[in-house]
Amino acid sequence: MSLQLFFAPGACSFVPHAMLELAGVPFEPMMVKLHKGEQRSPEYLAMNPRGQVPVLVDDGEVITQIVAILLHLDAKFPQAGILPASGVARTRALSTLAWMNNTVHPTFTHVFMPQKFTDDEGAQKIIRAFAANSYKGLLGEIEAMAAKASPWLCGEAPCALDAYALTLLRWGGYAGIDPTTLPATWTLVQRFAALPAVARVIERERLQLNVYQPAA
Amino acid sequence: MSLQLFFAPGACSFVPHAMLELAGVPFEPMMVKLHKGEQRSPEYLAMNPRGQVPVLVDDGEVITQIVAILLHLDAKFPQAGILPASGVARTRALSTLAWMNNTVHPTFTHVFMPQKFTDDEGAQKIIRAFAANSYKGLLGEIEAMAAKASPWLCGEAPCALDAYALTLLRWGGYAGIDPTTLPATWTLVQRFAALPAVARVIERERLQLNVYQPAA
Ligand SMILES: N[C@@H](CCC(=O)N[C@@H](CS)C(=O)NCC(=O)O)C(=O)O
Ligand SMILES: N[C@@H](CCC(=O)N[C@@H](CS)C(=O)NCC(=O)O)C(=O)O
Repeated sequence: MSLQLFFAPGACSFVPHAMLELAGVPFEPMMVKLHKGEQRSPEYLAMNPRGQVPVLVDDGEVITQIVAILLHLDAKFPQAGILPASGVARTRALSTLAWMNNTVHPTFTHVFMPQKFTDDEGAQKIIRAFAANSYKGLLGEIEAMAAKASPWLCGEAPCALDAYALTLLRWGGYAGIDPTTLPATWTLVQRFAALPAVARVIERERLQLNVYQPAA
Repeated sequence: MSLQLFFAPGACSFVPHAMLELAGVPFEPMMVKLHKGEQRSPEYLAMNPRGQVPVLVDDGEVITQIVAILLHLDAKFPQAGILPASGVARTRALSTLAWMNNTVHPTFTHVFMPQKFTDDEGAQKIIRAFAANSYKGLLGEIEAMAAKASPWLCGEAPCALDAYALTLLRWGGYAGIDPTTLPATWTLVQRFAALPAVARVIERERLQLNVYQPAA
């Protein structure tokens, strides 16, 4: 068995990265430097023509998309608790995971890479400002979930939603959102970051949890 | 057991709608008229505060998000073939499902509802035109998958990907894309539409498969 995870520091690949380390299964972390454009090298595009992280390679099988990677790992390592095992708890977690992935995450993409939505620089500025405001509302929805977490977003054990919440709240700093203004999420995220396995991932990615810089 | 599906004609709710009917399980189809704003009525928002379709209500449990609804139904009715049962086939199908849901579908939202991304009418026009072009590229990726379908996107039996492909190709007509220029997808979609269970859904939603109108 061989597992390789292609990830970029601070990117959404943190979610499977944290869950693999939490699962305690051996895998090879493969760093991709997005700021150097390594995701567009011929070798990388030969593996993933969409030029994105994360990619999980499981014995030669190339798997893209966070949701598919997580469900693949969950089926392979059911004891790892990547998601609740069954029933209503599982369905609710999948619903929040899908929403984080198809709504919250793409809203941040409008803030961080508005050039994916238009070549027009004026329109890029407009898109970014609007998206930063939408993003604040979406983090507010996560805050309401975190306020009810007992103690994790899926219940008794940390799960993929906690890892995604960490990434999304961290990104908020780049969208001008002070994480301490979302205290339930901020507490949850710090608690998640302090788990020894997660701390190893944060160290490997050299992440600072709070990247918010108040306007000068 | 009671199952209700809230759907809107022609919307993405077609995906679980078609799969429920194909599964042959009894459910109550609940029509929501988006053009009349019924998704923003107090009653609807009390059920789904995000004001969107689809919503599946399973014995009182409200389930949102296409991916979560499909996985919930797949766990409940494993014989229905909503997705391949296991292994690499399942992982690949989940990857394509997630991508259709988090990338192709939101790209069309930029064409259809650019007001979700800015209040500025000039920027809305710019966003729409750029997204229509991106959407064409994404339908091209689906065309490559359809060209290899044997005979369905998941293999021997029709699955959720075929239903999503129908919806996404149909939407292409509104983005100025003639479906017949994507012949493998167009053939697949027509074959899917002709399945008796799917034909019932198309009749209930009163869908025209090809909504493309050449510029006058
Ligand atoms: N839909 C993909 C999204 C992946 C994604 O957004 N990856 C970003 C990093 S967070 C990326 O690789 N961006 C590099 C680029 O676009 O050049 C998933 O869910 O896995
Ligand atoms: N992320 C949601 C998206 C659902 C969605 O986009 N619903 C659209 C129809 S395709 C809707 O209800 N729009 C109504 C509105 O925005 O007012 C999912 O995957 O279920």
